Amino acid sequence: MDKPLFQRVALVGIGLIGSSLARVMRRDGLAGHIAVSARTQKTLDTVVRLGLADSVSLDAAEAVRDVDLVVICTPHSAYRTVVQTFAPALKQGAIVSDVGSVKKVVLDEIAPMLPAGVHLVPTHPIAGTEHSGPEAGFAELFENRWCVLTPAPGTDANAVARVRQLWQRAGMRVEIMEAERHDLVLAITSHLPHLISYTIVGTATDLEAWLKNEVIKFSAGGFRDFTRIAASDPTMWRDIFLVNKEAVLEVLGRFTEDLTALQRAIRRNEGDILFDAFTRTREIRRGVIDAQQHVAPKKPGENGK
Amino acid sequence: MDKPLFQRVALVGIGLIGSSLARVMRRDGLAGHIAVSARTQKTLDTVVRLGLADSVSLDAAEAVRDVDLVVICTPHSAYRTVVQTFAPALKQGAIVSDVGSVKKVVLDEIAPMLPAGVHLVPTHPIAGTEHSGPEAGFAELFENRWCVLTPAPGTDANAVARVRQLWQRAGMRVEIMEAERHDLVLAITSHLPHLISYTIVGTATDLEAWLKNEVIKFSAGGFRDFTRIAASDPTMWRDIFLVNKEAVLEVLGRFTEDLTALQRAIRRNEGDILFDAFTRTREIRRGVIDAQQHVAPKKPGENGK
Repeated sequence: MDKPLFQRVALVGIGLIGSSLARVMRRDGLAGHIAVSARTQKTLDTVVRLGLADSVSLDAAEAVRDVDLVVICTPHSAYRTVVQTFAPALKQGAIVSDVGSVKKVVLDEIAPMLPAGVHLVPTHPIAGTEHSGPEAGFAELFENRWCVLTPAPGTDANAVARVRQLWQRAGMRVEIMEAERHDLVLAITSHLPHLISYTIVGTATDLEAWLKNEVIKFSAGGFRDFTRIAASDPTMWRDIFLVNKEAVLEVLGRFTEDLTALQRAIRRNEGDILFDAFTRTREIRRGVIDAQQHVAPKKPGENGK
Repeated sequence: MDKPLFQRVALVGIGLIGSSLARVMRRDGLAGHIAVSARTQKTLDTVVRLGLADSVSLDAAEAVRDVDLVVICTPHSAYRTVVQTFAPALKQGAIVSDVGSVKKVVLDEIAPMLPAGVHLVPTHPIAGTEHSGPEAGFAELFENRWCVLTPAPGTDANAVARVRQLWQRAGMRVEIMEAERHDLVLAITSHLPHLISYTIVGTATDLEAWLKNEVIKFSAGGFRDFTRIAASDPTMWRDIFLVNKEAVLEVLGRFTEDLTALQRAIRRNEGDILFDAFTRTREIRRGVIDAQQHVAPKKPGENGK
């Protein structure tokens, strides 16, 4: 067997993404030892039952002792607390990474909390399903998806290369990007779609009971896809909107202007404006298909049921 | 072989829905003769090549001669023209139906154009994909989906029963509903989701080139689903928004209020409001799953590629 990519890895927090990463490391022997820390004993018990860890601990400081790599896999709101806990226990030369959906905040808030000689490589594997928790994970989740690294200029090149290798072994295409740019792109491709999905499903939730029942019954016409997106983890998404506030408000402003223009066209019976608007969107769809980003990941054996 | 459900059927217009219905009728021997009329010879050639018709004609009046059932399968904007053309050629006792997504307009505009002794049964099979045209159809499209009939009070019960049987044979669950109520429900479950999807993809289309390319590349985070919905047929959707204007503007108003409230919560860092909003949407998702409406239809052999 090859020498593992990392002797010891700690996952701090372990939900859909963390547990999928653990499965990849297990499958390919990428870590000599996987230490997992979580907030509750219940989660740790699940992790042990699933065979995802070599050691588990409620104490993040214990989990990170002697590791080459820590990956923070908690919602954003827990970052400061867990880093405060584990930072003093890190060894010289350790790499700290994460899997959160907003990146500038990691450089701004987490970098100053780390001891000298520790390398920070903020990471966003752009993959997911609407399911959460360690049992929802699967090793194939990352295949053919993009992973963005946003290290600060001057970050140790070897540390960046090793994190890149890890995600490549998970099947991802890895790209290095400036953190602020990442946050704007994701505000459009992910944060705004989630906000809109939560909104429209929320609007339906407020309907009179008879109407709500019929909406559920006849959801196949488009609404169904929104309910799936709006089934994502509430804590994670609350955090994303709070930490990527500026970019989200910016793209939301553009969206609302465009929606208002279409609303006006409907009210004024301006069919040509609608037709043009509905035709030009096809260019982007073709781009998504050409980029092979149009197929949703499925847990093996899962049939969408 | 059993006696077919209809001796002669005419399909006026033949896209995704019409061609899928033709395939069902062929498969199960539901029509003794299928006559198809379309606007272009090219479409008729495709229909002949696919073996979907026993006779084809550019003239809708010729197609409907002697038929027991006409199904209008064109976009809404063509209804008046095609009905004007074929109405005088209908035989006594013929049934006229359609497959459009808005129903009150059919009762209001089409009913007065039909000769006495002809039965109007407006129909909406709630099924579809983002693909259009006769080649996109497949017989399994309708399976386990809902089909809504909105006949006016007093419509011949036998005519309604036969249309119901047709769609049941296609695998659909059939429900009779008041047209206005149908239009409101569909405004929420289908028309608003499409309008929003067109809008967000349009917003992305207007971005600077570098940003647009990155949006396409990183579309897997939610945006992808919107691009699929926004790839639907522009003519059909322009027509839907124009004919279901009142209901769409009403639900769009509710949606915009709710979106504004979430925008305000983001700006004011009100995490609790966001968390509550993102939690209550789960009830609807559970309803959709319980109602078994959460799986998208796929053309057999198609792998989402």
